[in-house]
Amino acid sequence: MRAAVYYGNHKLEVEDIPEPTTGDGQVKVRVSRNGICGTDLHEFFDGPIFISPSEPHPLTGKAMPVVIGHEFSGVVTEVGAGVDDVHEGDHVTIEPIYRCGECRPCRTGHYNLCNSVGFHGLMADGGMAEYTVVPRNQVHHLPDSVSLEMGALVEPMSVAYHAAGLAEVNDQSRALVFGAGPIGVGLWFALRGMGLTEIDVVEPSPTRRASIDKLGARTLDPTADDVAGIIAERTNGDGVDAAFDAAGVEASVESALTCLGERRPLISVAIYEKPLSTSLINLVLRERRIQGTICYTADDYRAVIDLMAQGHYDTQGWVETIPLSGVVEQGLEELRAGRRMKLLVDPTA
Amino acid sequence: MRAAVYYGNHKLEVEDIPEPTTGDGQVKVRVSRNGICGTDLHEFFDGPIFISPSEPHPLTGKAMPVVIGHEFSGVVTEVGAGVDDVHEGDHVTIEPIYRCGECRPCRTGHYNLCNSVGFHGLMADGGMAEYTVVPRNQVHHLPDSVSLEMGALVEPMSVAYHAAGLAEVNDQSRALVFGAGPIGVGLWFALRGMGLTEIDVVEPSPTRRASIDKLGARTLDPTADDVAGIIAERTNGDGVDAAFDAAGVEASVESALTCLGERRPLISVAIYEKPLSTSLINLVLRERRIQGTICYTADDYRAVIDLMAQGHYDTQGWVETIPLSGVVEQGLEELRAGRRMKLLVDPTA
Repeated sequence: MRAAVYYGNHKLEVEDIPEPTTGDGQVKVRVSRNGICGTDLHEFFDGPIFISPSEPHPLTGKAMPVVIGHEFSGVVTEVGAGVDDVHEGDHVTIEPIYRCGECRPCRTGHYNLCNSVGFHGLMADGGMAEYTVVPRNQVHHLPDSVSLEMGALVEPMSVAYHAAGLAEVNDQSRALVFGAGPIGVGLWFALRGMGLTEIDVVEPSPTRRASIDKLGARTLDPTADDVAGIIAERTNGDGVDAAFDAAGVEASVESALTCLGERRPLISVAIYEKPLSTSLINLVLRERRIQGTICYTADDYRAVIDLMAQGHYDTQGWVETIPLSGVVEQGLEELRAGRRMKLLVDPTA
Repeated sequence: MRAAVYYGNHKLEVEDIPEPTTGDGQVKVRVSRNGICGTDLHEFFDGPIFISPSEPHPLTGKAMPVVIGHEFSGVVTEVGAGVDDVHEGDHVTIEPIYRCGECRPCRTGHYNLCNSVGFHGLMADGGMAEYTVVPRNQVHHLPDSVSLEMGALVEPMSVAYHAAGLAEVNDQSRALVFGAGPIGVGLWFALRGMGLTEIDVVEPSPTRRASIDKLGARTLDPTADDVAGIIAERTNGDGVDAAFDAAGVEASVESALTCLGERRPLISVAIYEKPLSTSLINLVLRERRIQGTICYTADDYRAVIDLMAQGHYDTQGWVETIPLSGVVEQGLEELRAGRRMKLLVDPTA
């Protein structure tokens, strides 16, 4: 079968490799679409970071080379012994987390923080291939009303949904999202799904603003608009009930902290590459907080799939599909250049 | 009467001024002890900061010059019309917050964050005087078992108790406190009062470590001990359930973030004078949070007074009293030099 195999920095080869076999408790999936994540860009251009060059992962036993791809949907082609609730032909999306089940985070329901956490597509051969095999507990069914294209977006949309959940908002809340990349778009969908109607999205890139504008979002341009002044006016000086940093830059964090109401959270869903200069006094004087968030658990997957089934998400204008053969030139490099928003790879093309 | 009157930077005069008169709904107190707070140091050496040079405060109508002092206890000598639950001779401690009662923070029970917040002793003539007059809602009774010396500590101990309350800990929690100044000591007392037995206090100053050592605390010296390694060992790698920054330096924040368990808070109770370089990635990857905290409400005062009545607090080895006449030389300057831990002013001496 064809697959995109990662051999290290700037080395991603589309090549023929043997089809994986289905072990006990496992499910084999013919991949329909696999999204390219920011993590994949980091591995290609700056990595290896999460992918281990040689040390086998404690849960998967796998190191480089590895088939990348952890955002995918597909159709079940085979199930292993002991799997009786997933069947050939089922449309599924994959929650790619391997977890030990024994550490404190696992025992307390937060396996996204498992001390030995692994990801299908980073620490095991992933979804940028015609076929992949996953453990049963990574499989979520897609209802008929959710397309396989949409199903490939459940993973990044669940990252955003989980982040939104940590903000403790309700349908009367006002929110401010920094960054209109795929996670920013996902935050907007998630917050809308939670009933919020007062959401502003702050994004300096005109193309990204245009994408989310078309979905119906209200946007601000931090290079032209007085964000703090506009938010103060819109909230009668109270500030927003939640802010989200999906941009990962110092200016967003600083701006967010000045726009937040008292005792309200700034949710950090960005991968900060280096320490930021942060005005903690802005936290102290108003009892605000900065809350980190990463990944998701099955609850987030279920909630996102439900919202998708209700027609709540839209791929129009921000999601495109490319062939596996173009994963580097049409995929990673276009994304890195900021010319594309979200790209799904079709492994059969 | 004698009072310490603030006229601006480096200008604090002990002088004779008229005794205040008691208006409707007010209580006149003969001050027993008034603690010198870090805020007073900031006003004297770096101010005016909170004290308004000329603009009258919206709630008190007061600007400079002002009698400082907001941590005090005393004996009631007179009550105004309409006050029927406070009587001459009562021993009291003062919760020095003026609040509007109408803004969102006030309406939601968080008047410590009132949009017009004011403090007795900063925006009204305060407790570094023989007498002061406060509104009834600032008065808390001291039971017989709580001395007036101890009563003067209720304010700073309530700052710490409020901070501890935001950490959502229980008697099985492990905590790490950075800084053993008066607020660090207060955090140790508060956490012990909440039933915690596993508390480490990190403090580089040998004299401050010695003070809190004598109270029974377990201390670490960040200049000699491998704090992260020791905490990892003590917690079997899980990390602490709550960390507190009462030091306000970058090294504390960084160290705290590496010692924290997943989904646990770093409570910031320091006044950070400038932005810190903060590794937000340490928040994101473990879903930790940094939570700001400031002041207290009446609930914190009641809890601290109850714990004091149970003999839970001790002034031994860290609290000393000086005369009002020495407020600058024996007080502010000694504190600034780090030669004293906590000083109370006796306004009659």
